[in-house]
Formats: sequence, structure tokens, C-alpha cells
Amino acid sequence: MTEELVIREDRGAVTHLTLNLPGKLNALSDGMIAALTATFGDLMVSETQRVIVLKGAGKAFCAGHDLKEMQAKRAARDTGASALRDLFDRCARMMQMIPRLPQPVIAQTHGIATAAGCQLVASCDMAVAAEDCRFGVNGVNIGLFCSTPMVALSRNVPRKQVFEMLVTGEFIDAARAREIGLVNRVVPHDALEAETAALADHIAGKLGAAVRIGKRAFYEQLQLPLDKAYEMSGAVMVENMLDIDTVEGIAAFLDKRKPDWSQH
Amino acid sequence: MTEELVIREDRGAVTHLTLNLPGKLNALSDGMIAALTATFGDLMVSETQRVIVLKGAGKAFCAGHDLKEMQAKRAARDTGASALRDLFDRCARMMQMIPRLPQPVIAQTHGIATAAGCQLVASCDMAVAAEDCRFGVNGVNIGLFCSTPMVALSRNVPRKQVFEMLVTGEFIDAARAREIGLVNRVVPHDALEAETAALADHIAGKLGAAVRIGKRAFYEQLQLPLDKAYEMSGAVMVENMLDIDTVEGIAAFLDKRKPDWSQH
Amino acid sequence: MTEELVIREDRGAVTHLTLNLPGKLNALSDGMIAALTATFGDLMVSETQRVIVLKGAGKAFCAGHDLKEMQAKRAARDTGASALRDLFDRCARMMQMIPRLPQPVIAQTHGIATAAGCQLVASCDMAVAAEDCRFGVNGVNIGLFCSTPMVALSRNVPRKQVFEMLVTGEFIDAARAREIGLVNRVVPHDALEAETAALADHIAGKLGAAVRIGKRAFYEQLQLPLDKAYEMSGAVMVENMLDIDTVEGIAAFLDKRKPDWSQH
Repeated sequence: MTEELVIREDRGAVTHLTLNLPGKLNALSDGMIAALTATFGDLMVSETQRVIVLKGAGKAFCAGHDLKEMQAKRAARDTGASALRDLFDRCARMMQMIPRLPQPVIAQTHGIATAAGCQLVASCDMAVAAEDCRFGVNGVNIGLFCSTPMVALSRNVPRKQVFEMLVTGEFIDAARAREIGLVNRVVPHDALEAETAALADHIAGKLGAAVRIGKRAFYEQLQLPLDKAYEMSGAVMVENMLDIDTVEGIAAFLDKRKPDWSQH
Repeated sequence: MTEELVIREDRGAVTHLTLNLPGKLNALSDGMIAALTATFGDLMVSETQRVIVLKGAGKAFCAGHDLKEMQAKRAARDTGASALRDLFDRCARMMQMIPRLPQPVIAQTHGIATAAGCQLVASCDMAVAAEDCRFGVNGVNIGLFCSTPMVALSRNVPRKQVFEMLVTGEFIDAARAREIGLVNRVVPHDALEAETAALADHIAGKLGAAVRIGKRAFYEQLQLPLDKAYEMSGAVMVENMLDIDTVEGIAAFLDKRKPDWSQH
Repeated sequence: MTEELVIREDRGAVTHLTLNLPGKLNALSDGMIAALTATFGDLMVSETQRVIVLKGAGKAFCAGHDLKEMQAKRAARDTGASALRDLFDRCARMMQMIPRLPQPVIAQTHGIATAAGCQLVASCDMAVAAEDCRFGVNGVNIGLFCSTPMVALSRNVPRKQVFEMLVTGEFIDAARAREIGLVNRVVPHDALEAETAALADHIAGKLGAAVRIGKRAFYEQLQLPLDKAYEMSGAVMVENMLDIDTVEGIAAFLDKRKPDWSQH
């Protein structure tokens, strides 16, 4: 069941995850949120996987929540209040797993990424977009302001640009998404799979321990004042320097040879 | 008196406010600050107005404080210290009303927006600029560093770019202002009024309650750490979902028909 | 000794500092960090110098830490833990002196600025880059994630773009560095010295006291919530307004004449 909604394929140290509900534009249904949560949980403790690519099956990356399923929750005695609260909590917990995963997570986006689908892109560490991909937080068009998506989006994109997307409900294209910081790279549609895989492989070729402690420190220092951020990251540098493979990495660089990494 | 300095014109649910002191390039004089404060106060409790457009009469949007009036305050026994402190406090309170207004506020800028006039643009939720509009925090040119304007500006624009504007006192053009996040859209001078009005009307066509709670949540979550931001915005999503018009909005979307909104 | 590693040349009120270890691409060795710390300490209390330009001798601006020197520290009984911690602490303290210096500091960058060299650019108030200059935080290539550089970099550049630089170890060119906020201006290689000097002279022509209190307030308000930032900066505006030279500056502006500044 879980395997069907999120297809996991390990290609060496890179895990490719495919949202697999193409008939619903890969909506973040209860099942999809559970499947992603479970899959991220597995990857959280993986000792082999170094990079994660997240993509969507079919015509789109992800079109956000499953509105039909949400409407059905209204049948409860409280007209859905507690079930909806639970839904948004589960979704937010899943989104917040991404920065906590030890692996860099790259969103590979095509078609559309809207509402909670756009939030998913914003929550990833990096994003590569097909040049015909469009992004929007368009819940406002049906009377539902994208309040949870804006949390992730406004931590990527300057505030006036986020505000415009939220209140107009309009799409932006991939080029504009790159200009405002939502995606890293824009590539031709036909090259999307290959370019994203190449980027993932490139990162997987780095020393795993270094990337892992670096990612953890990255998000931690963002929330600290400057002096505390330096105090924490200085300790991280020492930890990194004392890694036996880093000893070898620097030695190899000084000797102008390739490093011979044990854990690589 | 107040009506003269700020002209308010309601076109349906969109309120157009015009700074009307063109002989002084719409300086933020004591009177102008009072007039804006009073007008914002009225709009804060409006149940009909959904979007605000803020523009300037004559050649410019706004050239900042009224320097003559400021110099006159020096005649006081304390050489102006308390009167100036009071001025900056009143101005800062007025600026901070903008994110607290329930309506999205769009700055419609032409000519120049300098010093506290540039701060006013930065304080608005969105901005549309005529392509020949220029922006600057040029107080440093007369020995008065734009310390209060920088508060708003540095919450829109990356820090090195703000710092450059502050210490050089140089203007940037509209295209650069868009690049660095200070404005949303740049349009030909002759299209400014129509394009801004069209944007305002577009937003006014959304469900008012959704925009209102969304704007409030937007600024609140910006100041919170990630987990607290999600906790707060999850509650906002539930509140929004239980609105009778949102029930209808989602139902209409699923039925592929236009929503029939009671409060629209 | 100190003079050799950092060459200080005062041209009027502008101090030009040159990192002078070209054989090591101006590495931030123990000696270089000490020399910069001492020089910044002198400038911290200078009453004549108004702007600082920081540049590199030879082929590059700065290539980061001195790896050979770092490896040598491993000979200690604790395999270098305490010496490395001390190194990163000294380096972080030096970096944090830059925003606290009363003078605006402009990085003049050419060749490459990598790892802690890229951190140095990010730590400066402004940066001018030769169009063939490249920037990177490429420690990950040798197994050492740039955790301390990311502290400064992520306070200049949107997070997805910083993350990409950190985990890929790839260079970005000067044009991209400007797009993402790391540098202010990109100029032809041959014009770098002259353009940076012109910018520095332009800033040095402003009222010194205004720039000084403005820079201090700039970094202070960045760490405050909106209302506290206004409270603090309002007080700074009053302090600035009561400066006798600001009285003259505003009077001269209103009289349409050049100011006659005592302290200029």
C-alpha cells in the first residue's frame, strides 16, 4: 500500500522517490502523507543513502492536498475541525522531516507544483525545475488561503513576492521561480530527469559524513544569532576536521592526488 | 483637513488613497502622518473594503519627511529632541499599521520614492512601479542616515543591497528595485494606474475572509521559528476551512462551477 | 611581521588593506588572522578613517584557511582538537569585527574567493567583483564542509542557493554572485581597482558621523523584531538630527547650497 503511493528506487547511494498518484496529480492525501512519512522515517536512519530525489509520476509534480478527501472530513460531528487539524499537523510534521533528514533532498519538478505541492518544493533543500513547470499557492482562488504553504515559501522567497503569490493565486514560471529563490536550476523538460540525477550523483560523490553534519548545522545556525551561530559551527568544523576521511581528504589535496576514503 | 492631505476614493471594494501634497512631493509632514493614521484607522475596521492602493499626487510618490517642518522643531528649548522623537514615533506607528490592516496594501509608485517615502513602499504588502520611478534612501547626502527607513527596507531587500543604498545615497531604478525584492511589478508609466487597479480588482475578487486571515497569519508566522509557525498556521487553515464560503468554494471547484459566495 | 601580511595604505579617509600572502592565495593563516585582527582593532578606534577597502595581492582575493598549517596542528596530543577549535574561534572573532567596525568595509574581489575567503566577502558590508572572479564554498570537495563560511553566506544569500554551493562545492561566477546578493557590483577586471576606489571615495564624502551611527544601527536592527527595531532606530534618528553637522546639512539642502561641515 505504502509502496504504491511512494515508489522508492535506490540507484547506488541516491534514492529516487516518486509520488505515485498521477490520477490525482499526486495529491498529498492521507495515504500519501503517511507514505512519505514512513519513507522519510526509513531514510532518516539509513547508513547507505546519501542523496534523495523527490519527483512526481504523470503530468505534474504535486497539486497539493486532496480536496475531495478533505471535504469528506466535514461529515464528522464537529464539521471536520479535529480531523482537519490532525491533517495539517501530520502534513506539517512530514514537511519538517525534510530539513532533518541526513541526506540532501532535491525536488525534481515538472508540470505544476501548487499549494501544498509548492510547499513541498520549498521544504526541500534544493530544487531543479523543468522550464515549463509552474508554481503557485493558489488556494485563495477557492477561498482557502495557503497559510501552511506560506510558512515554507516565505523561508525561501522575499516577502513581497510571496505575498503576491498568496493573494493573487497566480502561477509563476520556472525562470521567475529561480529569480526569487524557490528553485536552483531550470532545465529543458526532456533533460529534467538526467540533469537532476547528475546533480544528485555529484553530491553523492562527496564525503558522506561531511555532507551529513553540514546539513544538520546549516538549518541549526539559520535560527541562531551571529555569535551563537559561529560558536556552534566552529564546533562542527572541529568535529569534521577530526574525521579520519577528512584527514585523508586534506592530505590528498595537498599531495595533489585523489583521496582514498574508507567510508565513501 | 485630513481629507485634503489624503484623498480617499472607494471604487467598489478597492480603496484608492492619494497622498495629496504635490507641492512638497507628498512629504510625510505632521499633517500627512496624521491623515494617513486616521485613514488607516478607519480602514482597519471597514467591513466593505478589501484592497488598498496607495499613490501620490503630482510628480512623485513621496519624498520622505518634511525637512522644513523638522528644522522648525529645533526652536524648542531642548533643540527639538522631544518633538523629533515624537515625530519618528508617530511615523513608525503609522508604518506599522500597514501590515496590521486587514486589506492588502499596494503601493503605486511613480517619479521618486525616497527616504521615508521609500520606507512607505517597503512597508506596503506589494508595490507596482512605473518603469521610470526611482527609489533611494538618500538622507545620508544631507548628513541624516535613513535609520528608520532601513528597518522596513531591510525586511524586503538583501542586506548588502540595502547597505549600499544607505551609504551611497544613490537612486536605483524600477527594474533594479524589482530584482532586489522592493517592488513586485514594473509597468510603463502610462499603464501604471490601470495595471495597479487591475491587480487590486483581481485581489478584491478573492474571498475576503480568506485574504484577511491569510494576511494576518503571514506577518505573524514570519517572526516565529519553523515549528511554531506551522502550529499557528495549521490552526489558521482549520479556521479558514470551516468558513461557510470556503465550504462552497471547494465544493464549486470539485463540481467545476463558479462559487456562489455569500459574503463576496 | 603584521605589516607584511596585511598592507595598510591610507589614501585620505579611505584605508586600503591588502592581504599579502600571494604565494598561498592570501590564505587565512594564523598570522593572517592575527594581522587582520590587529589592523581591524586599530581601525575600530580611528578618528580619521571613514571607509575600508579589503583586497588581495596576486592572483586571488583569498582562498580560505591555510590547509598545511591546519594539518600540522594534528601533531598535538589531542590530534589537534583544541588548536583547531582555537583557530575557528579566532577566525570567527575576526569576521565578526567587520560589522562592528565604524567604517563601511568593501571587499574588492578578483580571481577566486573560496571557503573562508568567500566568508570574508560575505562578512564585509559591501563587495565589488571583477567580472572574472569566482566564488565558492568548496571545502566539501576535500571532505570539510564549509560550516563556518555558511554562517556569513546564509545571511547574504537565499537558503536554497547557499545550500547548493555548500553541497556541490561548485563555483559561481560574479554575475550569479550579484544575482543572489553576495556582491553589489560587477565590473571589468581592469576597472576593479578604480571602480572600488571611486565607490569608497564617494562614501567617504558623506558625513562621517551619520555613516558611523547608521552602520551600527543597521546590524543592530536586523536582529530585532519590527517594533523594537523602530524604537531603537527612532532614537538613532534623533541623535543624528541633533548633530551640528546634520543641522547644517539640512539647512544647506533647503537653501540649495553645499553644506559646510566642520568634521568633514
